[in-house]
Amino acid sequence: MKVNRFSRYFPILDWLQDYTTETFVRDALAAVIVTLMLVPQALAYAMLAGLPAEVGLYASMIPLVVYALFGTSATLAVGPVAVASLMTASALGGVAEVGSPEYVGAALVLAALSGLVLFGMGLLRLGFLANFLSHPVISGFVTASGILIATSQVGKILGIESGGSNLLEMGHDMWQTLGAINPLTLVVGLGALIYLYLCRNYLKNLLMKLGLSERLSDLITKAAPVSSVIITTVAAWFFNLSAHGVALVGKVPSGLPSVGLPPLDPSLWATLVPAAVLISLVGFVESVSVAQTLAAKRRQRINPNSELIALGLANVGAGIGGGAPVSGGFSRSVVNFEAGARTPVAGALTAIGITFATLTLTGFLAFLPKATLAAIIIIAVGTLIDFAAVRRTLAYSRADATAMIATIVLTLAHGVELGILVGVAASLGLHLYRTSQPHSAVVGRIPGTEHFRNINRFDVETDDKITILRVDESLYFANARYLEDTVLELSSENTSVQDFVLACQAVNEIDASALESLEAINRRLQEAGIRLHLAEVKGPVMDRLRTTPFCQELTGEIFLSTYEAWTTLRQQKSAVGAMSSA
Amino acid sequence: MKVNRFSRYFPILDWLQDYTTETFVRDALAAVIVTLMLVPQALAYAMLAGLPAEVGLYASMIPLVVYALFGTSATLAVGPVAVASLMTASALGGVAEVGSPEYVGAALVLAALSGLVLFGMGLLRLGFLANFLSHPVISGFVTASGILIATSQVGKILGIESGGSNLLEMGHDMWQTLGAINPLTLVVGLGALIYLYLCRNYLKNLLMKLGLSERLSDLITKAAPVSSVIITTVAAWFFNLSAHGVALVGKVPSGLPSVGLPPLDPSLWATLVPAAVLISLVGFVESVSVAQTLAAKRRQRINPNSELIALGLANVGAGIGGGAPVSGGFSRSVVNFEAGARTPVAGALTAIGITFATLTLTGFLAFLPKATLAAIIIIAVGTLIDFAAVRRTLAYSRADATAMIATIVLTLAHGVELGILVGVAASLGLHLYRTSQPHSAVVGRIPGTEHFRNINRFDVETDDKITILRVDESLYFANARYLEDTVLELSSENTSVQDFVLACQAVNEIDASALESLEAINRRLQEAGIRLHLAEVKGPVMDRLRTTPFCQELTGEIFLSTYEAWTTLRQQKSAVGAMSSA
Repeated sequence: MKVNRFSRYFPILDWLQDYTTETFVRDALAAVIVTLMLVPQALAYAMLAGLPAEVGLYASMIPLVVYALFGTSATLAVGPVAVASLMTASALGGVAEVGSPEYVGAALVLAALSGLVLFGMGLLRLGFLANFLSHPVISGFVTASGILIATSQVGKILGIESGGSNLLEMGHDMWQTLGAINPLTLVVGLGALIYLYLCRNYLKNLLMKLGLSERLSDLITKAAPVSSVIITTVAAWFFNLSAHGVALVGKVPSGLPSVGLPPLDPSLWATLVPAAVLISLVGFVESVSVAQTLAAKRRQRINPNSELIALGLANVGAGIGGGAPVSGGFSRSVVNFEAGARTPVAGALTAIGITFATLTLTGFLAFLPKATLAAIIIIAVGTLIDFAAVRRTLAYSRADATAMIATIVLTLAHGVELGILVGVAASLGLHLYRTSQPHSAVVGRIPGTEHFRNINRFDVETDDKITILRVDESLYFANARYLEDTVLELSSENTSVQDFVLACQAVNEIDASALESLEAINRRLQEAGIRLHLAEVKGPVMDRLRTTPFCQELTGEIFLSTYEAWTTLRQQKSAVGAMSSA
Repeated sequence: MKVNRFSRYFPILDWLQDYTTETFVRDALAAVIVTLMLVPQALAYAMLAGLPAEVGLYASMIPLVVYALFGTSATLAVGPVAVASLMTASALGGVAEVGSPEYVGAALVLAALSGLVLFGMGLLRLGFLANFLSHPVISGFVTASGILIATSQVGKILGIESGGSNLLEMGHDMWQTLGAINPLTLVVGLGALIYLYLCRNYLKNLLMKLGLSERLSDLITKAAPVSSVIITTVAAWFFNLSAHGVALVGKVPSGLPSVGLPPLDPSLWATLVPAAVLISLVGFVESVSVAQTLAAKRRQRINPNSELIALGLANVGAGIGGGAPVSGGFSRSVVNFEAGARTPVAGALTAIGITFATLTLTGFLAFLPKATLAAIIIIAVGTLIDFAAVRRTLAYSRADATAMIATIVLTLAHGVELGILVGVAASLGLHLYRTSQPHSAVVGRIPGTEHFRNINRFDVETDDKITILRVDESLYFANARYLEDTVLELSSENTSVQDFVLACQAVNEIDASALESLEAINRRLQEAGIRLHLAEVKGPVMDRLRTTPFCQELTGEIFLSTYEAWTTLRQQKSAVGAMSSA
């Protein structure tokens, strides 16, 4: 038991005892492939976040090692990701000038804060909070973020300086600077874009036709960004493109990040809290989805609350190790999985790979054109944009589609923060609205059976002295008054009613407000000379009702089944009828 | 139909055509009694709100007439009420100095704004929003408000000037000024308090013992505040108590309010919006509860959305007619009902009564000691404080009790606004938390029957190749992932499972997120070689599922009943078993 309690906080204790040389070889191979993929992405997402290139590399060192120690997913590839980088840019834009040391410091604070938020949620076991980001809202948000990200990179392809945190600002900015297009940058950027597009869509099939295995073809295809980096970097060096106005990554400090506390400015920390919460939640939801999808393929389990702690510490690591907010990346995790990673050691080895690259490649990367990175980003976020999901959701549920479209429109028009907040509020509001008007139906007996069905949809037997209302939802404060209204309306419509039966087979819970409503219904029906009965009350609900005065005050009875209520009440009436006619 | 559409907005068209002399006599009698009760209350609640005495009277004129034209309740007595007056004082305290013309102007703005909020909600048919104030939160809020109101009046009884918007501030203020107690004020205040207390608790029985009818005894008891006003006013005039430091109401302008727009200062309006929304919602919930309770006794119905419009216009009337926020008062409405009011005409006649009092009695009321009004308020709010409700709620539901206690504590410690907001947030949060972890149970067959029960609670037949999970809640975004977790945990625990059945008899809805979770569950189980089946899916839920790709992708079948799933799957297995052994 002792070991188990420890391993809840240190999953590494679970898997390290079975670690073999074979596992290491598999992890190492996966790490090499992920490193190749991560180097250009790390540079690109740093640029997207408005940060110097090396920050992306630093964010791919300490956080990966920390996650390997605490994470429960064997294959989640942690590091800089597109959406978190966009949200970082949006959060820091209001706090400091892009390119300034304050901006870089604020990114450290944001990473540390996100980490503390995630870590705290993990300790308090608040992983369930992420469930309040509904699928349509997340999907809409990711689609809109993808569009924003792609748009933000168009300027880099054109060789113009443009900014903005929403589609309108970006469009306006680009329009203003359109005269300054740099033709050579456009050649490099558009060339890289077309090259990456062709690789993504046709290279795999081509390689397979040439006789390579599907897995190898797939991995080579995924490494296309590396070849685009090599080609354009060599070209930039050879043709001295910098002298012709092509923006290059420039001097990247070769060496390791200095470790230390992020700037301790209380007002800066306070300002960044809301953004940190949003980045944490979105990053957590994405990471857990990916990790769960991959774990399920091997019948493994991941623990969301342990993931919160692991991702939290990884971000704290980013904050003290020169990085920026990190989370689990979708495409890199899939590559990690397919390349055969067996344990989090693969992540730690990736960190070593990135460190090696930082120590050796920075001279080379200085000649990398920014337009190449922009092309890599645009192709990468292409997979995020999913309009088919909007169509699917629209066909299935208007309420869900409303929340989704509100999220997309507001994210595009007002930026990521307002977009996700409105999405969450809309989905909560629509859910509460739906459950505040619960479905219920007056039912009658299908002649000759013990079954009762909606009187409006079936040809059923009824009795104008007995109303049976089937309630199709749990009763709680938001719908309690609606039930009161429904019952009182039904009983005032039909003045000959003497008995009112609530059939509760779908009622999983009755909260204190609903209990008061039932008491009020009972009292009001009593004043109108009508008895209230319950039928088919579930065991746990009945257990709690039994302790309340409501059970004593109830003017009628509690029947096991609707059929029992029907036959008992009908017999009573015919007995009374016989007496009065006698 | 034309008439009906009109009468939705003008309920007066409904009841005026049946109006008779007899109805008028009943309405007039009720109006006289309510007027007697309202005069001291109007003055008292104006004082509670920090407003001049006449504002209470003005708020009992135009709003009552407006409500009579648009209201659907025959007996709701609209006017100044205790909780709204406390909330008004709290809202205006931050905006202007008590006693200044700006303070009075801000009260007009607050009334007009509340009116517009209510009116707008009525037009948009948003009456259901009031349902999100759960009963325990309202009840806790009213109890805490009652305590705050009573405490705020203690200073007036002692003859000291004290203020504060929460219990701590009030206590501190009172402690600071305790040296300035005025003994004569204390005699008047404590005398009135004891007199009113004795009347409330013993007068009715005494009068009935003296041979008066119960109804008459009750009405005389309810009029005790009037006699306390008369006695102390005469005493104050006779003994010239003002000269001995007893605070009197003082000169009340005799005449009608001047009608006009409230101050049109945009920043003032903007500042008061949040307070106006809270006052509107709380006032609306109280009014509708009272109106519904009384209407049900006569098998009448009130329409919440029409009530929003009527209360909204009544408050707009208060805003342009020199008043302050109004709503339906509980005790006055009950008196109105018991005195025999038949139609809203009773309310209009009450307004005439108040107008008559304002024109004739202000000379007399100038000598009314404020301590008497404080005593009237303390006795009146005594009925609001209900600690038994806390005990009841605690016994029934810990979650509801948590929201209730949070509301009480925060209202007392931080004032009305934060209290009600935290209460609403807490009850919503707790509800969402509860439904985000839906109850579900693995079930097995009760041998020899078609019934399936929880394997942990019953001795049932199971098959280690078939898992049947009964889901006891509608599936939506907040609990979709929890279901995923439960299913995947169950299937990874038992590796011999080949078929997984979800029994959905309690699932009233599957939203887009839950649909995606079902798709994910289906995919993941498929990857693990397990088929997913559904059973007992409700008609409307099935109708929507049928249009989705999920139905085609489903690896298993959709069974009408759990029993059908059980027998079919068992047969398949025994057939396969027979084949493999053959």
